[in-house]
Amino acid sequence: MRDNPLPIILSGPSGVGKDAVLARMREMGLRLHYTITATTRPRREGERDGVDYYFVSQKRFQEMVEGGEFLEWANVYGNWYGVPKKQVQEALGRGLDVIIKADVQGAETIKGIAPQAVFIFLAPPSMEELEERLRQRKTESTEELSERIKTAREEMESLHMFDYVVVNHQIDQTVSQIDAIITAEGCRVKPRVIKL
Amino acid sequence: MRDNPLPIILSGPSGVGKDAVLARMREMGLRLHYTITATTRPRREGERDGVDYYFVSQKRFQEMVEGGEFLEWANVYGNWYGVPKKQVQEALGRGLDVIIKADVQGAETIKGIAPQAVFIFLAPPSMEELEERLRQRKTESTEELSERIKTAREEMESLHMFDYVVVNHQIDQTVSQIDAIITAEGCRVKPRVIKL
Repeated sequence: MRDNPLPIILSGPSGVGKDAVLARMREMGLRLHYTITATTRPRREGERDGVDYYFVSQKRFQEMVEGGEFLEWANVYGNWYGVPKKQVQEALGRGLDVIIKADVQGAETIKGIAPQAVFIFLAPPSMEELEERLRQRKTESTEELSERIKTAREEMESLHMFDYVVVNHQIDQTVSQIDAIITAEGCRVKPRVIKL
Repeated sequence: MRDNPLPIILSGPSGVGKDAVLARMREMGLRLHYTITATTRPRREGERDGVDYYFVSQKRFQEMVEGGEFLEWANVYGNWYGVPKKQVQEALGRGLDVIIKADVQGAETIKGIAPQAVFIFLAPPSMEELEERLRQRKTESTEELSERIKTAREEMESLHMFDYVVVNHQIDQTVSQIDAIITAEGCRVKPRVIKL
């Protein structure tokens, strides 16, 4: 609970480890609302509906878009992803900081709507390491993989629109830096003014 | 060591606990250069020359002022205090963040010289608590005490020129928040540009 809760956008190129970092943040008990994204993409092994994502049909997703229910939504590699606006507003209303995972394109959209949100770019230690991580994921075809690598290189160029960059060398250090950023933002004399 | 080391100004009203917080930061091993202030005031029990302060004569202090050796210097309750500029420049040159203790007036002077430094205001949990702490110090006469209380009230009004405010409820939490601010500042995408 705090007087001036913030939306915190955690972004970065595909494969950088956003999901793993978020999972570790939960494990370590960082007190935040973790936004659950709605998606039309098939569930991967180990993912739980309503926890990792809301897995919805194309039809339901389209209804949500038309109802203006998303803070941002985008098609990524043929699947739809959307951040439910109401969920973010409700958590902020309860005095909770909200962490929103977004790809770089999504972060740019949110920047247009809420420029005063906190934007964190999760960066790979190197591009070579990022490519290796994408390869190891083995959920993509060769074509998808090379497209992802190309996109990741482009995404690295959007760094300048972010407030903070955290290099994901070692996950516990990454989580501790994100935690420090959230703590420091809570100590600002001039609070950010958030309108959603 | 970091690429973009910062001067961090720790300020706040007299009696708020700046010295105790700095001592705890050292104990906890926060890797910073702790600036040693030169002063003409008499050494208090337990204080060590060259560690807590450089205790210098009026004459030596005057020479340092005339030699332009201070980042800021001021007379506070009849004693002179000065922050040696060279010490700060050298530590920054070695890639170390530098923490500078300053009273509120001193912080304002440094703000004029280095507006991009990081300014942290250490605030008391309440004015009542601050007055109680000043009373317990027992190093001041009744007159000095009531002057300090009056000044402290005025100093609280300078909060708006600071970047961060940390309420000194509990010293370990205070140190951990200052540590978080320093970590977060190191993650900024657009580094502060420091000229001294």
